[in-house]
Amino acid sequence: MPTATRSDAPAPGQARALFRERVDVPTAGWCPGYTQVNLISVPADWAYDVLLFCQRNPKPCPVLDVTDRGAWTTPLAPGADLRTDVPRYRVWENGQLVDEPLDVMDHWRDDLVTFLIGCSFTFESALAEAGVPLRHVEQGRNVAMYRTNRPCRPAGELHGPMVVSMRQIPAGLVETATQVSSLMPAVHGGPVHVGDPAELGIDDLARPDFGDPVRARPGDVPVFWACGVTPQAAVMASKPPFALTHAPGYMLITDALDEHYRVA
Amino acid sequence: MPTATRSDAPAPGQARALFRERVDVPTAGWCPGYTQVNLISVPADWAYDVLLFCQRNPKPCPVLDVTDRGAWTTPLAPGADLRTDVPRYRVWENGQLVDEPLDVMDHWRDDLVTFLIGCSFTFESALAEAGVPLRHVEQGRNVAMYRTNRPCRPAGELHGPMVVSMRQIPAGLVETATQVSSLMPAVHGGPVHVGDPAELGIDDLARPDFGDPVRARPGDVPVFWACGVTPQAAVMASKPPFALTHAPGYMLITDALDEHYRVA
Repeated sequence: MPTATRSDAPAPGQARALFRERVDVPTAGWCPGYTQVNLISVPADWAYDVLLFCQRNPKPCPVLDVTDRGAWTTPLAPGADLRTDVPRYRVWENGQLVDEPLDVMDHWRDDLVTFLIGCSFTFESALAEAGVPLRHVEQGRNVAMYRTNRPCRPAGELHGPMVVSMRQIPAGLVETATQVSSLMPAVHGGPVHVGDPAELGIDDLARPDFGDPVRARPGDVPVFWACGVTPQAAVMASKPPFALTHAPGYMLITDALDEHYRVA
Repeated sequence: MPTATRSDAPAPGQARALFRERVDVPTAGWCPGYTQVNLISVPADWAYDVLLFCQRNPKPCPVLDVTDRGAWTTPLAPGADLRTDVPRYRVWENGQLVDEPLDVMDHWRDDLVTFLIGCSFTFESALAEAGVPLRHVEQGRNVAMYRTNRPCRPAGELHGPMVVSMRQIPAGLVETATQVSSLMPAVHGGPVHVGDPAELGIDDLARPDFGDPVRARPGDVPVFWACGVTPQAAVMASKPPFALTHAPGYMLITDALDEHYRVA
Protein backbone atom coordinates (compact mmCIF):
# COMPACT_ATOMS: atom_id res chain seq x y z
CA MET A 1 0.00 0.00 0.00
CA PRO A 2 1.21 3.51 -0.66
CA THR A 3 2.23 5.51 2.35
CA ALA A 4 0.60 8.71 1.09
CA THR A 5 -3.14 9.12 1.18
CA ARG A 6 -5.36 11.86 -0.18
CA SER A 7 -5.89 13.36 3.24
CA ASP A 8 -2.18 14.21 3.36
CA ALA A 9 -2.77 16.67 0.52
CA PRO A 10 0.91 16.97 -0.47
CA ALA A 11 2.03 19.82 -2.67
CA PRO A 12 2.45 18.88 -6.35
CA GLY A 13 6.25 18.78 -6.06
CA GLN A 14 6.00 16.49 -3.01
CA ALA A 15 3.57 14.21 -4.84
CA ARG A 16 5.90 14.00 -7.83
CA ALA A 17 8.80 13.20 -5.51
CA LEU A 18 6.77 10.32 -4.03
CA PHE A 19 5.99 8.98 -7.50
CA ARG A 20 9.64 9.31 -8.47
CA GLU A 21 10.38 7.14 -5.44
CA ARG A 22 8.02 4.53 -6.92
CA VAL A 23 4.75 5.20 -5.08
CA ASP A 24 2.32 3.55 -7.50
CA VAL A 25 -1.27 4.87 -7.22
CA PRO A 26 -3.95 6.50 -9.35
CA THR A 27 -3.93 10.25 -8.78
CA ALA A 28 -7.69 11.01 -8.57
CA GLY A 29 -8.24 13.27 -5.57
CA TRP A 30 -4.53 14.06 -5.13
CA CYS A 31 -3.38 17.68 -4.74
CA PRO A 32 -6.84 19.25 -4.99
CA GLY A 33 -6.81 22.46 -6.99
CA TYR A 34 -3.73 21.53 -9.03
CA THR A 35 -4.01 20.51 -12.67
CA GLN A 36 -3.36 16.89 -13.58
CA VAL A 37 -2.45 16.05 -17.17
CA ASN A 38 -2.29 13.14 -19.59
CA LEU A 39 1.09 12.43 -21.17
CA ILE A 40 2.04 11.00 -24.55
CA SER A 41 5.51 10.95 -26.08
CA VAL A 42 6.08 10.05 -29.73
CA PRO A 43 9.08 10.14 -32.08
CA ALA A 44 9.51 13.56 -33.69
CA ASP A 45 8.38 12.30 -37.10
CA TRP A 46 4.96 11.56 -35.58
CA ALA A 47 4.67 14.83 -33.66
CA TYR A 48 2.87 16.81 -36.37
CA ASP A 49 0.20 14.16 -36.75
CA VAL A 50 -0.33 14.03 -32.97
CA LEU A 51 -0.53 17.81 -32.67
CA LEU A 52 -2.93 18.03 -35.62
CA PHE A 53 -5.02 15.15 -34.23
CA CYS A 54 -5.32 17.09 -30.98
CA GLN A 55 -6.24 20.31 -32.81
CA ARG A 56 -8.93 18.48 -34.75
CA ASN A 57 -10.30 16.80 -31.64
CA PRO A 58 -10.08 19.50 -28.98
CA LYS A 59 -12.76 18.09 -26.67
CA PRO A 60 -10.86 14.85 -25.92
CA CYS A 61 -7.36 16.21 -26.65
CA PRO A 62 -6.86 19.75 -25.26
CA VAL A 63 -3.10 20.33 -25.49
CA LEU A 64 -1.71 22.21 -22.49
CA ASP A 65 1.98 21.92 -23.37
CA VAL A 66 4.31 20.39 -25.96
CA THR A 67 8.00 19.88 -25.24
CA ASP A 68 10.82 20.55 -27.61
CA ARG A 69 12.33 17.40 -29.14
CA GLY A 70 14.07 15.29 -26.51
CA ALA A 71 13.18 17.55 -23.59
CA TRP A 72 11.76 16.03 -20.38
CA THR A 73 10.73 19.24 -18.66
CA THR A 74 7.66 21.47 -18.83
CA PRO A 75 6.88 24.98 -17.60
CA LEU A 76 3.66 23.54 -16.14
CA ALA A 77 5.67 21.67 -13.48
CA PRO A 78 9.02 23.35 -12.76
CA GLY A 79 11.54 20.81 -11.51
CA ALA A 80 9.58 17.82 -12.76
CA ASP A 81 11.22 15.06 -14.78
CA LEU A 82 8.67 13.74 -17.26
CA ARG A 83 10.54 10.40 -17.36
CA THR A 84 10.07 9.60 -13.69
CA ASP A 85 7.40 11.77 -12.07
CA VAL A 86 4.27 10.01 -13.31
CA PRO A 87 3.27 7.17 -10.97
CA ARG A 88 2.91 4.61 -13.74
CA TYR A 89 3.68 4.66 -17.48
CA ARG A 90 2.81 2.57 -20.49
CA VAL A 91 5.22 1.65 -23.29
CA TRP A 92 3.78 0.99 -26.74
CA GLU A 93 5.35 -0.65 -29.79
CA ASN A 94 3.38 -0.80 -33.03
CA GLY A 95 0.17 -0.18 -31.10
CA GLN A 96 0.82 -2.98 -28.61
CA LEU A 97 1.24 -2.39 -24.88
CA VAL A 98 4.63 -3.95 -24.11
CA ASP A 99 5.42 -2.67 -20.63
CA GLU A 100 3.87 -0.75 -17.73
CA PRO A 101 6.84 0.55 -15.75
CA LEU A 102 7.05 3.06 -12.89
CA ASP A 103 9.57 5.17 -14.82
CA VAL A 104 10.70 5.29 -18.44
CA MET A 105 14.42 5.96 -17.99
CA ASP A 106 15.23 2.74 -19.86
CA HIS A 107 12.80 3.54 -22.67
CA TRP A 108 13.61 7.21 -23.25
CA ARG A 109 14.81 8.34 -26.69
CA ASP A 110 16.35 11.65 -27.77
CA ASP A 111 13.85 12.05 -30.61
CA LEU A 112 10.73 12.06 -28.41
CA VAL A 113 8.27 14.95 -28.35
CA THR A 114 5.95 14.94 -25.34
CA PHE A 115 2.39 16.22 -25.27
CA LEU A 116 0.65 17.15 -22.02
CA ILE A 117 -3.10 16.99 -22.44
CA GLY A 118 -5.86 18.28 -20.18
CA CYS A 119 -7.60 15.89 -17.79
CA SER A 120 -11.13 15.92 -16.43
CA PHE A 121 -9.71 15.69 -12.90
CA THR A 122 -9.11 19.44 -13.39
CA PHE A 123 -12.79 20.26 -13.10
CA GLU A 124 -13.39 17.83 -10.24
CA SER A 125 -12.37 20.42 -7.65
CA ALA A 126 -14.90 22.80 -9.20
CA LEU A 127 -17.56 20.05 -9.22
CA ALA A 128 -16.90 19.29 -5.57
CA GLU A 129 -17.07 22.99 -4.66
CA ALA A 130 -20.42 23.16 -6.44
CA GLY A 131 -21.72 20.28 -4.30
CA VAL A 132 -21.45 17.56 -6.93
CA PRO A 133 -20.33 14.28 -5.30
CA LEU A 134 -17.47 12.34 -6.94
CA ARG A 135 -18.36 8.66 -6.61
CA HIS A 136 -14.94 7.35 -7.68
CA VAL A 137 -13.21 9.46 -5.07
CA GLU A 138 -15.77 8.39 -2.40
CA GLN A 139 -15.09 4.78 -3.35
CA GLY A 140 -11.30 5.21 -3.48
CA ARG A 141 -11.20 4.16 -7.12
CA ASN A 142 -9.80 5.31 -10.43
CA VAL A 143 -12.39 6.99 -12.67
CA ALA A 144 -14.11 4.68 -15.19
CA MET A 145 -13.20 5.23 -18.86
CA TYR A 146 -14.68 3.72 -22.01
CA ARG A 147 -13.92 3.56 -25.70
CA THR A 148 -16.92 4.88 -27.67
CA ASN A 149 -18.38 4.34 -31.14
CA ARG A 150 -17.60 7.96 -32.03
CA PRO A 151 -14.59 8.23 -34.35
CA CYS A 152 -12.19 11.11 -33.90
CA ARG A 153 -11.42 13.22 -36.94
CA PRO A 154 -8.23 11.63 -38.32
CA ALA A 155 -4.94 13.51 -38.83
CA GLY A 156 -2.31 12.06 -41.12
CA GLU A 157 -1.54 8.56 -39.84
CA LEU A 158 -3.51 8.97 -36.63
CA HIS A 159 -7.08 7.80 -36.17
CA GLY A 160 -9.16 6.15 -33.46
CA PRO A 161 -12.28 6.36 -31.33
CA MET A 162 -13.07 8.99 -28.73
CA VAL A 163 -12.58 7.77 -25.16
CA VAL A 164 -14.83 9.12 -22.39
CA SER A 165 -14.67 9.27 -18.63
CA MET A 166 -17.92 8.59 -16.78
CA ARG A 167 -19.20 10.05 -13.55
CA GLN A 168 -22.40 8.97 -11.80
CA ILE A 169 -24.15 12.23 -10.89
CA PRO A 170 -27.37 12.73 -8.92
CA ALA A 171 -30.03 13.65 -11.51
CA GLY A 172 -30.71 17.00 -9.85
CA LEU A 173 -27.05 18.01 -10.17
CA VAL A 174 -26.46 17.13 -13.84
CA GLU A 175 -27.18 20.69 -14.93
CA THR A 176 -24.78 22.09 -12.33
CA ALA A 177 -22.08 19.65 -13.40
CA THR A 178 -22.62 20.65 -17.03
CA GLN A 179 -22.39 24.37 -16.29
CA VAL A 180 -19.31 24.07 -14.09
CA SER A 181 -17.36 21.92 -16.55
CA SER A 182 -18.43 23.97 -19.58
CA LEU A 183 -16.54 26.91 -18.11
CA MET A 184 -13.32 24.90 -18.37
CA PRO A 185 -13.04 24.22 -22.12
CA ALA A 186 -9.27 23.71 -21.97
CA VAL A 187 -9.80 20.58 -19.89
CA HIS A 188 -12.57 18.87 -21.90
CA GLY A 189 -15.37 21.34 -21.13
CA GLY A 190 -18.97 20.17 -20.83
CA PRO A 191 -20.17 16.56 -21.15
CA VAL A 192 -20.42 14.90 -24.56
CA HIS A 193 -23.35 12.73 -23.44
CA VAL A 194 -25.77 12.27 -20.55
CA GLY A 195 -27.69 9.06 -19.93
CA ASP A 196 -27.95 5.83 -21.92
CA PRO A 197 -24.43 4.40 -22.40
CA ALA A 198 -25.63 2.41 -25.45
CA GLU A 199 -25.79 5.63 -27.46
CA LEU A 200 -21.99 5.80 -27.18
CA GLY A 201 -21.67 2.08 -27.98
CA ILE A 202 -20.87 1.21 -24.36
CA ASP A 203 -22.36 -2.20 -23.52
CA ASP A 204 -21.69 -2.50 -19.82
CA LEU A 205 -20.75 0.29 -17.41
CA ALA A 206 -19.44 -2.34 -15.00
CA ARG A 207 -16.66 -3.23 -17.44
CA PRO A 208 -14.72 -0.06 -18.28
CA ASP A 209 -11.97 -0.19 -20.89
CA PHE A 210 -9.66 1.81 -18.64
CA GLY A 211 -9.73 2.57 -14.89
CA ASP A 212 -12.09 0.98 -12.36
CA PRO A 213 -15.82 0.28 -12.30
CA VAL A 214 -17.58 2.82 -10.10
CA ARG A 215 -20.91 2.10 -8.38
CA ALA A 216 -23.91 4.36 -8.89
CA ARG A 217 -26.10 5.42 -5.99
CA PRO A 218 -29.89 5.49 -6.33
CA GLY A 219 -30.96 8.45 -8.46
CA ASP A 220 -27.58 8.79 -10.18
CA VAL A 221 -27.33 9.36 -13.93
CA PRO A 222 -24.19 8.48 -15.92
CA VAL A 223 -22.56 11.57 -17.41
CA PHE A 224 -19.78 11.24 -19.99
CA TRP A 225 -16.91 13.62 -20.70
CA ALA A 226 -14.37 13.45 -23.52
CA CYS A 227 -11.19 11.95 -22.07
CA GLY A 228 -7.47 12.54 -22.51
CA VAL A 229 -6.90 8.79 -22.83
CA THR A 230 -8.18 9.22 -26.41
CA PRO A 231 -4.60 9.56 -27.77
CA GLN A 232 -3.82 6.13 -26.26
CA ALA A 233 -6.77 4.65 -28.15
CA ALA A 234 -5.37 6.33 -31.27
CA VAL A 235 -1.99 4.73 -30.59
CA MET A 236 -3.68 1.34 -30.27
CA ALA A 237 -5.58 1.90 -33.55
CA SER A 238 -2.88 3.66 -35.57
CA LYS A 239 0.18 1.67 -34.45
CA PRO A 240 3.05 4.16 -34.46
CA PRO A 241 6.33 2.27 -34.07
CA PHE A 242 6.87 3.65 -30.56
CA ALA A 243 5.07 5.71 -27.94
CA LEU A 244 5.16 6.33 -24.22
CA THR A 245 2.10 7.35 -22.22
CA HIS A 246 0.97 7.58 -18.62
CA ALA A 247 -1.17 4.68 -17.38
CA PRO A 248 -4.83 5.77 -17.40
CA GLY A 249 -5.67 7.53 -14.15
CA TYR A 250 -1.99 7.74 -13.14
CA MET A 251 -1.47 11.35 -14.15
CA LEU A 252 1.28 13.92 -14.06
CA ILE A 253 0.40 16.44 -11.34
CA THR A 254 1.49 19.93 -12.38
CA ASP A 255 1.94 23.17 -10.46
CA ALA A 256 -0.73 24.87 -12.62
CA LEU A 257 -3.90 25.80 -10.76
CA ASP A 258 -7.17 24.30 -11.97
CA GLU A 259 -8.58 27.79 -11.60
CA HIS A 260 -6.28 28.94 -14.42
CA TYR A 261 -8.33 26.89 -16.89
CA ARG A 262 -11.68 28.41 -15.91
CA VAL A 263 -12.79 31.05 -18.41
CA ALA A 264 -15.22 32.97 -16.21
CA MET B 1 -17.19 51.27 -54.24
CA PRO B 2 -18.37 47.78 -53.45
CA THR B 3 -21.95 47.05 -54.39
CA ALA B 4 -22.66 45.20 -51.16
CA THR B 5 -23.04 47.05 -47.90
CA ARG B 6 -23.41 45.76 -44.40
CA SER B 7 -27.14 46.43 -44.38
CA ASP B 8 -27.57 43.91 -47.19
CA ALA B 9 -26.47 41.22 -44.71
CA PRO B 10 -25.61 38.61 -47.35
CA ALA B 11 -25.29 34.96 -46.32
CA PRO B 12 -21.66 33.80 -45.92
CA GLY B 13 -21.70 31.94 -49.25
CA GLN B 14 -23.02 35.05 -51.00
CA ALA B 15 -20.35 37.20 -49.39
CA ARG B 16 -17.63 34.77 -50.47
CA ALA B 17 -19.02 34.80 -54.01
CA LEU B 18 -18.76 38.61 -54.04
CA PHE B 19 -15.17 38.47 -52.84
CA ARG B 20 -14.40 35.82 -55.47
CA GLU B 21 -15.73 38.33 -58.02
CA ARG B 22 -13.14 40.82 -56.70
CA VAL B 23 -15.20 42.91 -54.26
CA ASP B 24 -12.37 44.34 -52.16
CA VAL B 25 -13.48 45.48 -48.66
CA PRO B 26 -12.68 44.85 -45.01
CA THR B 27 -15.19 42.39 -43.55
CA ALA B 28 -15.92 43.99 -40.15
CA GLY B 29 -19.70 43.99 -39.68
CA TRP B 30 -20.33 41.59 -42.59
CA CYS B 31 -22.58 38.55 -42.06
CA PRO B 32 -23.36 39.19 -38.38
CA GLY B 33 -23.44 35.98 -36.37
CA TYR B 34 -21.10 34.09 -38.70
CA THR B 35 -17.51 33.38 -37.75
CA GLN B 36 -14.74 35.22 -39.57
CA VAL B 37 -11.24 33.76 -39.54
CA ASN B 38 -7.63 34.69 -40.16
CA LEU B 39 -5.77 32.67 -42.81
CA ILE B 40 -2.12 31.70 -43.11
CA SER B 41 -0.67 29.17 -45.56
CA VAL B 42 2.90 27.92 -45.24
CA PRO B 43 4.95 25.21 -46.96
CA ALA B 44 4.45 21.82 -45.30
CA ASP B 45 7.96 21.83 -43.81
CA TRP B 46 6.95 24.89 -41.75
CA ALA B 47 3.55 23.54 -40.69
CA TYR B 48 4.67 21.91 -37.46
CA ASP B 49 6.32 25.10 -36.24
CA VAL B 50 3.20 27.14 -37.08
CA LEU B 51 0.89 24.66 -35.35
CA LEU B 52 3.14 24.52 -32.29
CA PHE B 53 3.46 28.33 -32.25
CA CYS B 54 -0.33 28.53 -32.19
CA GLN B 55 -0.59 25.92 -29.43
CA ARG B 56 1.93 27.84 -27.34
CA ASN B 57 0.17 31.16 -27.93
CA PRO B 58 -3.51 30.25 -27.80
CA LYS B 59 -4.79 33.73 -26.94
CA PRO B 60 -3.58 35.36 -30.19
CA CYS B 61 -3.58 32.15 -32.28
CA PRO B 62 -6.63 29.95 -31.59
CA VAL B 63 -6.61 27.40 -34.42
CA LEU B 64 -10.10 26.61 -35.73
CA ASP B 65 -9.05 24.42 -38.68
CA VAL B 66 -5.95 23.12 -40.45
CA THR B 67 -6.12 21.80 -44.01
CA ASP B 68 -4.37 18.75 -45.32
CA ARG B 69 -1.32 19.53 -47.47
CA GLY B 70 -2.31 21.23 -50.72
CA ALA B 71 -6.05 21.38 -49.91
CA TRP B 72 -7.96 24.64 -50.42
CA THR B 73 -11.19 23.64 -48.69
CA THR B 74 -12.38 23.67 -45.09
CA PRO B 75 -15.34 22.10 -43.32
CA LEU B 76 -15.93 25.50 -41.71
CA ALA B 77 -17.07 26.93 -45.08
CA PRO B 78 -18.45 24.23 -47.39
CA GLY B 79 -18.00 25.21 -51.03
CA ALA B 80 -15.42 27.88 -50.27
CA ASP B 81 -12.15 28.06 -52.20
CA LEU B 82 -9.45 29.33 -49.85
CA ARG B 83 -7.47 30.65 -52.85
CA THR B 84 -10.16 33.11 -54.00
CA ASP B 85 -12.80 33.69 -51.32
CA VAL B 86 -10.93 36.12 -49.08
CA PRO B 87 -11.38 39.72 -50.24
CA ARG B 88 -7.68 40.53 -50.17
CA TYR B 89 -4.53 38.46 -49.56
CA ARG B 90 -0.91 39.09 -48.77
CA VAL B 91 2.03 37.21 -50.30
CA TRP B 92 5.22 36.95 -48.26
CA GLU B 93 8.74 35.94 -49.31
CA ASN B 94 11.47 35.72 -46.69
CA GLY B 95 9.37 37.85 -44.35
CA GLN B 96 8.83 40.60 -46.92
CA LEU B 97 5.40 41.57 -48.22
CA VAL B 98 5.73 41.18 -51.99
CA ASP B 99 2.15 41.37 -53.23
CA GLU B 100 -1.39 42.10 -52.02
CA PRO B 101 -3.64 40.42 -54.61
CA LEU B 102 -7.39 39.77 -54.58
CA ASP B 103 -6.82 36.05 -55.15
CA VAL B 104 -3.80 33.75 -54.86
CA MET B 105 -4.38 31.44 -57.82
CA ASP B 106 -1.04 32.48 -59.31
CA HIS B 107 0.78 32.02 -56.02
CA TRP B 108 -0.68 28.69 -54.92
CA ARG B 109 1.61 25.72 -54.28
CA ASP B 110 0.80 22.06 -53.79
CA ASP B 111 2.86 21.88 -50.59
CA LEU B 112 0.89 24.54 -48.69
CA VAL B 113 -0.82 23.83 -45.39
CA THR B 114 -3.44 26.41 -44.42
CA PHE B 115 -4.34 27.46 -40.89
CA LEU B 116 -7.65 29.15 -40.08
CA ILE B 117 -7.35 31.12 -36.86
CA GLY B 118 -10.07 32.67 -34.73
CA CYS B 119 -10.85 36.39 -35.09
CA SER B 120 -12.14 38.89 -32.55
CA PHE B 121 -14.92 39.83 -34.98
CA THR B 122 -16.52 36.61 -33.70
CA PHE B 123 -17.36 38.16 -30.35
CA GLU B 124 -18.46 41.47 -31.83
CA SER B 125 -22.00 40.18 -32.38
CA ALA B 126 -22.08 39.19 -28.73
CA LEU B 127 -20.68 42.58 -27.69
CA ALA B 128 -23.32 44.38 -29.77
CA GLU B 129 -26.08 42.22 -28.29
CA ALA B 130 -24.83 43.13 -24.82
CA GLY B 131 -25.10 46.82 -25.70
CA VAL B 132 -21.40 47.48 -26.26
CA PRO B 133 -20.93 49.94 -29.17
CA LEU B 134 -18.40 49.07 -31.88
CA ARG B 135 -16.71 52.31 -32.86
CA HIS B 136 -14.97 50.94 -35.97
CA VAL B 137 -18.25 49.62 -37.34
CA GLU B 138 -19.98 52.94 -36.52
CA GLN B 139 -17.20 54.76 -38.35
CA GLY B 140 -17.16 52.32 -41.30
CA ARG B 141 -13.55 51.41 -40.67
CA ASN B 142 -11.36 48.39 -40.27
CA VAL B 143 -10.50 47.61 -36.65
CA ALA B 144 -7.19 49.09 -35.40
CA MET B 145 -4.38 46.60 -34.74
CA TYR B 146 -0.97 47.11 -33.13
CA ARG B 147 2.24 45.21 -32.64
CA THR B 148 3.07 45.02 -28.92
CA ASN B 149 6.19 44.68 -26.79
CA ARG B 150 5.00 41.27 -25.56
CA PRO B 151 6.93 38.44 -27.23
CA CYS B 152 5.09 35.26 -28.11
CA ARG B 153 6.52 32.00 -26.84
CA PRO B 154 8.67 30.80 -29.79
CA ALA B 155 8.22 27.44 -31.54
CA GLY B 156 11.03 26.04 -33.65
CA GLU B 157 11.91 28.69 -36.24
CA LEU B 158 8.89 30.88 -35.45
CA HIS B 159 9.00 33.86 -33.12
CA GLY B 160 7.54 37.34 -32.97
CA PRO B 161 5.52 39.83 -30.95
CA MET B 162 1.87 39.53 -29.99
CA VAL B 163 -0.44 41.70 -32.09
CA VAL B 164 -3.59 43.14 -30.51
CA SER B 165 -6.83 44.61 -31.80
CA MET B 166 -8.13 47.66 -29.95
CA ARG B 167 -11.68 48.76 -29.30
CA GLN B 168 -12.69 52.03 -27.66
CA ILE B 169 -15.29 51.03 -25.06
CA PRO B 170 -17.33 53.29 -22.77
CA ALA B 171 -15.78 52.96 -19.31
CA GLY B 172 -19.01 51.65 -17.80
CA LEU B 173 -19.14 48.79 -20.32
CA VAL B 174 -15.57 47.49 -20.01
CA GLU B 175 -16.62 44.85 -17.49
CA THR B 176 -19.47 43.69 -19.74
CA ALA B 177 -17.12 43.49 -22.73
CA THR B 178 -14.65 41.49 -20.66
CA GLN B 179 -17.29 39.04 -19.46
CA VAL B 180 -18.84 38.54 -22.89
CA SER B 181 -15.54 37.94 -24.68
CA SER B 182 -14.15 35.74 -21.89
CA LEU B 183 -16.91 33.23 -22.65
CA MET B 184 -15.47 32.80 -26.16
CA PRO B 185 -11.94 31.50 -25.46
CA ALA B 186 -11.65 29.86 -28.91
CA VAL B 187 -11.70 33.32 -30.52
CA HIS B 188 -9.19 35.18 -28.29
CA GLY B 189 -11.31 35.25 -25.11
CA GLY B 190 -11.07 38.19 -22.70
CA PRO B 191 -8.87 41.27 -23.18
CA VAL B 192 -5.13 41.11 -22.59
CA HIS B 193 -5.00 44.74 -21.43
CA VAL B 194 -7.27 47.65 -20.55
CA GLY B 195 -6.14 51.27 -20.55
CA ASP B 196 -2.72 52.85 -21.11
CA PRO B 197 -1.39 51.77 -24.53
CA ALA B 198 2.18 52.47 -23.41
CA GLU B 199 2.11 49.40 -21.22
CA LEU B 200 1.95 47.34 -24.41
CA GLY B 201 4.64 49.45 -26.05
CA ILE B 202 2.12 51.24 -28.26
CA ASP B 203 3.22 54.86 -28.79
CA ASP B 204 0.30 56.33 -30.68
CA LEU B 205 -3.19 54.87 -31.02
CA ALA B 206 -3.75 57.10 -34.06
CA ARG B 207 -1.11 55.16 -35.98
CA PRO B 208 -2.05 51.48 -35.95
CA ASP B 209 0.33 48.92 -37.48
CA PHE B 210 -2.58 47.22 -39.25
CA GLY B 211 -6.12 48.35 -40.10
CA ASP B 212 -7.46 51.88 -39.62
CA PRO B 213 -7.28 54.45 -36.82
CA VAL B 214 -10.58 54.55 -34.93
CA ARG B 215 -11.77 57.62 -33.03
CA ALA B 216 -12.70 57.40 -29.36
CA ARG B 217 -15.78 59.10 -28.00
CA PRO B 218 -15.68 60.98 -24.69
CA GLY B 219 -15.54 58.49 -21.82
CA ASP B 220 -14.15 55.66 -23.93
CA VAL B 221 -11.31 53.48 -22.67
CA PRO B 222 -9.04 51.54 -25.05
CA VAL B 223 -9.40 47.78 -24.57
CA PHE B 224 -6.94 45.38 -26.21
CA TRP B 225 -7.54 41.81 -27.35
CA ALA B 226 -4.98 39.32 -28.64
CA CYS B 227 -5.25 39.29 -32.44
CA GLY B 228 -5.05 36.66 -35.14
CA VAL B 229 -2.73 38.88 -37.16
CA THR B 230 -0.02 37.70 -34.73
CA PRO B 231 1.09 34.92 -37.14
CA GLN B 232 1.72 37.61 -39.80
CA ALA B 233 3.97 39.44 -37.36
CA ALA B 234 5.75 36.12 -36.77
CA VAL B 235 6.20 35.72 -40.55
CA MET B 236 7.70 39.21 -40.71
CA ALA B 237 10.05 38.41 -37.80
CA SER B 238 10.92 34.80 -38.65
CA LYS B 239 11.18 35.06 -42.45
CA PRO B 240 9.95 31.71 -43.76
CA PRO B 241 10.78 31.45 -47.49
CA PHE B 242 7.12 31.70 -48.45
CA ALA B 243 3.71 32.35 -46.89
CA LEU B 244 0.27 33.50 -47.90
CA THR B 245 -2.08 35.31 -45.51
CA HIS B 246 -5.27 37.33 -45.66
CA ALA B 247 -4.82 41.11 -45.53
CA PRO B 248 -5.54 42.31 -41.96
CA GLY B 249 -9.27 42.92 -41.55
CA TYR B 250 -10.09 41.22 -44.86
CA MET B 251 -11.18 37.92 -43.39
CA LEU B 252 -12.54 34.61 -44.60
CA ILE B 253 -16.22 34.48 -43.63
CA THR B 254 -17.21 30.93 -42.68
CA ASP B 255 -20.56 29.20 -42.26
CA ALA B 256 -19.79 28.49 -38.59
CA LEU B 257 -21.97 30.36 -36.14
CA ASP B 258 -20.27 32.69 -33.65
CA GLU B 259 -22.54 31.12 -31.05
CA HIS B 260 -20.71 27.81 -31.56
CA TYR B 261 -17.61 29.30 -29.95
CA ARG B 262 -19.38 30.48 -26.80
CA VAL B 263 -18.75 28.09 -23.91
CA ALA B 264 -21.73 29.01 -21.74
